[in-house]
Amino acid sequence: MQPVMTGEEIMGMLDEVFPQIHAGGRVYAIDSVSPGQSVVRLSANELHLRPGGTVSGPTMMALADLAAYVVILAHIGPEALAVTTNLNINFLRKPEPGDLLCTCRLLKLGKRLAVVDCEVAGEGAEELVAHATATYSIPPR
Amino acid sequence: MQPVMTGEEIMGMLDEVFPQIHAGGRVYAIDSVSPGQSVVRLSANELHLRPGGTVSGPTMMALADLAAYVVILAHIGPEALAVTTNLNINFLRKPEPGDLLCTCRLLKLGKRLAVVDCEVAGEGAEELVAHATATYSIPPR
Amino acid sequence: MQPVMTGEEIMGMLDEVFPQIHAGGRVYAIDSVSPGQSVVRLSANELHLRPGGTVSGPTMMALADLAAYVVILAHIGPEALAVTTNLNINFLRKPEPGDLLCTCRLLKLGKRLAVVDCEVAGEGAEELVAHATATYSIPPR
Amino acid sequence: MQPVMTGEEIMGMLDEVFPQIHAGGRVYAIDSVSPGQSVVRLSANELHLRPGGTVSGPTMMALADLAAYVVILAHIGPEALAVTTNLNINFLRKPEPGDLLCTCRLLKLGKRLAVVDCEVAGEGAEELVAHATATYSIPPR
Repeated sequence: MQPVMTGEEIMGMLDEVFPQIHAGGRVYAIDSVSPGQSVVRLSANELHLRPGGTVSGPTMMALADLAAYVVILAHIGPEALAVTTNLNINFLRKPEPGDLLCTCRLLKLGKRLAVVDCEVAGEGAEELVAHATATYSIPPR
Repeated sequence: MQPVMTGEEIMGMLDEVFPQIHAGGRVYAIDSVSPGQSVVRLSANELHLRPGGTVSGPTMMALADLAAYVVILAHIGPEALAVTTNLNINFLRKPEPGDLLCTCRLLKLGKRLAVVDCEVAGEGAEELVAHATATYSIPPR
Repeated sequence: MQPVMTGEEIMGMLDEVFPQIHAGGRVYAIDSVSPGQSVVRLSANELHLRPGGTVSGPTMMALADLAAYVVILAHIGPEALAVTTNLNINFLRKPEPGDLLCTCRLLKLGKRLAVVDCEVAGEGAEELVAHATATYSIPPR
Repeated sequence: MQPVMTGEEIMGMLDEVFPQIHAGGRVYAIDSVSPGQSVVRLSANELHLRPGGTVSGPTMMALADLAAYVVILAHIGPEALAVTTNLNINFLRKPEPGDLLCTCRLLKLGKRLAVVDCEVAGEGAEELVAHATATYSIPPR
């Protein structure tokens, strides 16, 4: 399963189609795109933090949703507008202050549905802070 | 299952403990609190919208998470700090422009876990735009 | 949303296509089919019980999956072969001995996906023992 | 995270506490237990098959639930009686005929909750047929 878009191309498309994700400051970056996988980085600002400096739950949900979209786009290309149909997330630990990385893996890329496994962890950390699975519906091409 | 806090008391507590939810403008209101149930209103601003004026998926996830917290607080009171452990959401339809209401119902309020059913719909609409279930862990009291 | 099959017609189709659900004895019955909704009854036998006479978790998952299929069939008719793509279940309480009823409600019946809300409770009981949501993929017709 | 029970010890305990899982013939085996992980094998018999020889959805749900229990038991020992509180499963592909392996990984083993990632695949196959996450509540010890 070879990617058909680079991280730069995907970010360019997101900037155009979903400029709102950068509201309040540029917090998302695409660290890597590889076969069946991608890594999205969140550099949280004070909008995303809870008391104690930990990233909020909704921020992690938004990160997983966006990162799942990135790995799908990377493999189907920019024409198709996939939409989330289901997202299930388990919050495992309070994140330490610092960037969060969301590593997404395509479990399935079908004609109609894509299912993605998302692991969220602090940079360099061994333990996950959250785990999600997301399903996107892919429109007929 | 009688509530022990009013909507006003809960909003007062949220203002104090989670002022970030009002970042970018006051968008959440608690419409009602009743036995085992509560309704939270989202008056989305442009931060929450996607092209076409529909509320974004992450905004609905944040709404469901907050509304589930509200119905739990309403029934356990302000001392306990519950945290989300799981959230599962199905996106059903594109929301029409306008306010969204999230109606939450306590499916279980145990000593350690609370499980909440969340229905998200436009005001006056018959069909749901999203359905979620959320589990919160309740700390020992 | 009017049903296009009766409970009897659906059970006749299940008997033919999925005779395995009756392996070990006839335990499922369709109590009712109405617009957007249906109720399936499980009369558990010893295969489905755990020590203490309570119905096992996997038995409730199978019940929710089957009952969701029933409400979909009831509304799309027998030609289409829908398949489960996602099931999320929360176990809320230990069931008391006795029959379990699974009440399913169509949250969405789209061209490609159907999403169903499933409530499992003992007969006459007020509190749910489990709550599930199931998504089925509907093949092109 | 070192296991405190071997696969043999766990199977011995299951035989005693949950003999029903072997109803209709012995279909489950514990292939391996290692730090934070375990593999459970399902050798389906005709009770678990759908037309065409593929393993049914409920059978895969039961497999994931049992395999998650095995990896938890392996790491907390036999005294504690953990119970499933949530299971979320995505069905990805129709399984080919033959044994299924469920590889479970502990995402979190807390004092009150354990969260497990479950991958189901045919033996030797690269692609998953199902992916699940399960949460168990762990009683006070």
